[in-house]
Amino acid sequence: MKLNRKDIVGLKDLTVDEINLILETADGFRDIATRKRKKVPALQGHTVVNLFYEKSTRTRTSFEIAAKRLSADTVNFTASESSVGKGETFIDTVRNIEAMHPDVIVVRHGSPGAPHMLARMIKPGVINAGDGAHEHPSQALLDMLMIRDEKGGFAGLKVAIIGDISHSRVARSNIYGLTRMGAKVRLSGPATMIPPGIEKLGVTVAPTIEEAIRNVDVIMMLRIQLERQNKVLFSSLREYGRLFGLNEQRLKLAKKDAIIMHPGPMNRGVEIDPYVADCQRSRILNQVTNGVAVRMALLYLVTGGGN
Amino acid sequence: MKLNRKDIVGLKDLTVDEINLILETADGFRDIATRKRKKVPALQGHTVVNLFYEKSTRTRTSFEIAAKRLSADTVNFTASESSVGKGETFIDTVRNIEAMHPDVIVVRHGSPGAPHMLARMIKPGVINAGDGAHEHPSQALLDMLMIRDEKGGFAGLKVAIIGDISHSRVARSNIYGLTRMGAKVRLSGPATMIPPGIEKLGVTVAPTIEEAIRNVDVIMMLRIQLERQNKVLFSSLREYGRLFGLNEQRLKLAKKDAIIMHPGPMNRGVEIDPYVADCQRSRILNQVTNGVAVRMALLYLVTGGGN
Amino acid sequence: MKLNRKDIVGLKDLTVDEINLILETADGFRDIATRKRKKVPALQGHTVVNLFYEKSTRTRTSFEIAAKRLSADTVNFTASESSVGKGETFIDTVRNIEAMHPDVIVVRHGSPGAPHMLARMIKPGVINAGDGAHEHPSQALLDMLMIRDEKGGFAGLKVAIIGDISHSRVARSNIYGLTRMGAKVRLSGPATMIPPGIEKLGVTVAPTIEEAIRNVDVIMMLRIQLERQNKVLFSSLREYGRLFGLNEQRLKLAKKDAIIMHPGPMNRGVEIDPYVADCQRSRILNQVTNGVAVRMALLYLVTGGGN
Repeated sequence: MKLNRKDIVGLKDLTVDEINLILETADGFRDIATRKRKKVPALQGHTVVNLFYEKSTRTRTSFEIAAKRLSADTVNFTASESSVGKGETFIDTVRNIEAMHPDVIVVRHGSPGAPHMLARMIKPGVINAGDGAHEHPSQALLDMLMIRDEKGGFAGLKVAIIGDISHSRVARSNIYGLTRMGAKVRLSGPATMIPPGIEKLGVTVAPTIEEAIRNVDVIMMLRIQLERQNKVLFSSLREYGRLFGLNEQRLKLAKKDAIIMHPGPMNRGVEIDPYVADCQRSRILNQVTNGVAVRMALLYLVTGGGN
Repeated sequence: MKLNRKDIVGLKDLTVDEINLILETADGFRDIATRKRKKVPALQGHTVVNLFYEKSTRTRTSFEIAAKRLSADTVNFTASESSVGKGETFIDTVRNIEAMHPDVIVVRHGSPGAPHMLARMIKPGVINAGDGAHEHPSQALLDMLMIRDEKGGFAGLKVAIIGDISHSRVARSNIYGLTRMGAKVRLSGPATMIPPGIEKLGVTVAPTIEEAIRNVDVIMMLRIQLERQNKVLFSSLREYGRLFGLNEQRLKLAKKDAIIMHPGPMNRGVEIDPYVADCQRSRILNQVTNGVAVRMALLYLVTGGGN
Repeated sequence: MKLNRKDIVGLKDLTVDEINLILETADGFRDIATRKRKKVPALQGHTVVNLFYEKSTRTRTSFEIAAKRLSADTVNFTASESSVGKGETFIDTVRNIEAMHPDVIVVRHGSPGAPHMLARMIKPGVINAGDGAHEHPSQALLDMLMIRDEKGGFAGLKVAIIGDISHSRVARSNIYGLTRMGAKVRLSGPATMIPPGIEKLGVTVAPTIEEAIRNVDVIMMLRIQLERQNKVLFSSLREYGRLFGLNEQRLKLAKKDAIIMHPGPMNRGVEIDPYVADCQRSRILNQVTNGVAVRMALLYLVTGGGN
């Protein structure tokens, strides 16, 4: 089976079959990372451009390693060092890169929808590596691979997502993906951080973290993204941690075999207690490992690969 | 035939045969970019260092992609992050890089002549990726490949170059190359931007853009490089666009099949009207595509490759 | 023979046999740099991450070229652009990188001991590329390879190290390595730059540069690292050069065949006179060449390679 699209811009429009194809492909690529020679020739002679308009070493590194393990050539195009500072428009920059015949452009941009526009405009594949507070599909897909690994599937699974839902592209992509796959998603966070009407996406909102995580299979803690907020939406970090941080005590409310996830980078002692971050039920580092496999799958599938 | 030099520092001293060899080699490399596997083993095990003393993602990316499509290893050495900030001289930095045995150093530097000095000093090949307002040979060669593609040759061809000639290394390299190949070059721009005595290079200067582009085969618009100017040489951008910008009306003065070129990044609405930039006669993006092919040719030829 | 450790964090704990193994392996790799195809498949499919918390293009480039000549994939992770700025701890950043299954992490960090902690914590190999004023093992090993090349060995050899010993990780690593191999090390520099009690490491301290270099086989000049000092430890650069700079006159005090070394980047006219830096007895650029070979050896040996 092959993916019938050249772009992955979000989870919103991925079908159940497409999500399953991506997760299965990622599952198959996973063992490459544990071989002595961590490389397959799948994308030899392909060019992957990482076009980042926001700083991000972590996600960029994950995509870069994924591309190299598929034998693709990678080029990092950091907008802050480029013609962007010389007044060129986003579209002209992108058309220029396209003219160099890359196979895939991985794009991170501050404006919601920028990768979607890009995808319609150009011939190479486009993978959204985060667009403002909109979507971050590769993160949601690696989270979903993590959940599938642990729980075997999604149907009827209870997932709590806790934190700044309004500003979180990770939350948004996970909500689209998890609900599509049949999971039940509960959100919680400070009232100012829950978008009004979010229930229309098929989720429920709990007023407290305690209610949100009671009896869930998966707890997904979000990073408090100070750098993404224009005004102070909560009185203090300490207060936030007291009200919405995940600690040992609260963890007991979830199912005995509930797993803990976090997209990173963590603010230890704010949204997550260090003990919880490092405990046996934490899957935070496994998520990172899954990230490389998922990104290999995305690069492979958008360039026409199949399983 | 092989290139009898290890460096490409400018168009000034390239012969007709050398220019033809480069363009033909580039022509031969061009189709690699449209294959599924965009890679040939020509420079396997070669090391190309991109030594950039000025920010430039666009040119650096083009060289990097060119090198990788020839299977060379590339290393980016950005001077702003390096020992330059620690007080090391340019010559010591370069001698240090040379001691690591690269095969080619691609250098961009703010001082005219820096690559020339470098080329005489060191054993690896040197390609000038722009030295101050002096030369930018790979850009001029890709422009010439574009013209050859469209017009079949250069003899008797009329080419207008419009804009800030004084500060433009692109203009200077094109003037050397195009006149050498037998084209007739007309310049125009604000009086403060035309170097006195430029006619000695075998070009003519027209007082208005209208006179310059009348009946030409090629219109080459230059970027207004605000970042390269110390004082304001024109009253305002709007004024500049009104007097020397290329718009639909003016375009009618050129030959019916005249093509429009621009080295990018464009200031849309200043030196070039958006309609003109995107019209069927614009070759601006094709230039970028040719850029990768020309840079492949340069890397290949300076390391001893032949056709 | 193989190296019985997965990390190179310093010279302090390397045995004579280990140092000899590294130098011999480097010696064997050296000729790769002078071939037409400067590449061996030794580390194909391996991932080397350069994790730099301090700016350094020179050392990073040397490691990057070394890795590529062994066919490894390299990823540059510059801390200033990463989650570090988002409040993530060093340990979390490192655990994240580890979760992507690199084979080696090359780390430069401002805190002494950071690479040592890292090495104990994670499964991939760790190579210290400089930790504060503590150790810089790959630099000392390339210096030692240089000395071995010229002098055939270390036993009884007299080596002077001149400059800011207190702030120099290069000095510290060389002291450990050279004394272990049987060389006699003399230090000299301004009194404020000689750590009290340094004699316990088996070296002698001379009050003047003249006494230090009299009759030595090797003169190692240190860079005055202005950027690493919090207060002014000498009255002026001119004064420093007058008292502790190496010039032609002073050079006559050393043995006739004494060689001159400097880790770079040099402050010409401060710690070293331009004439001396460029004279026939200078090995400063050969050190850089040896650097690539030593780093190839380190990458090869910590990933289980043997000779």
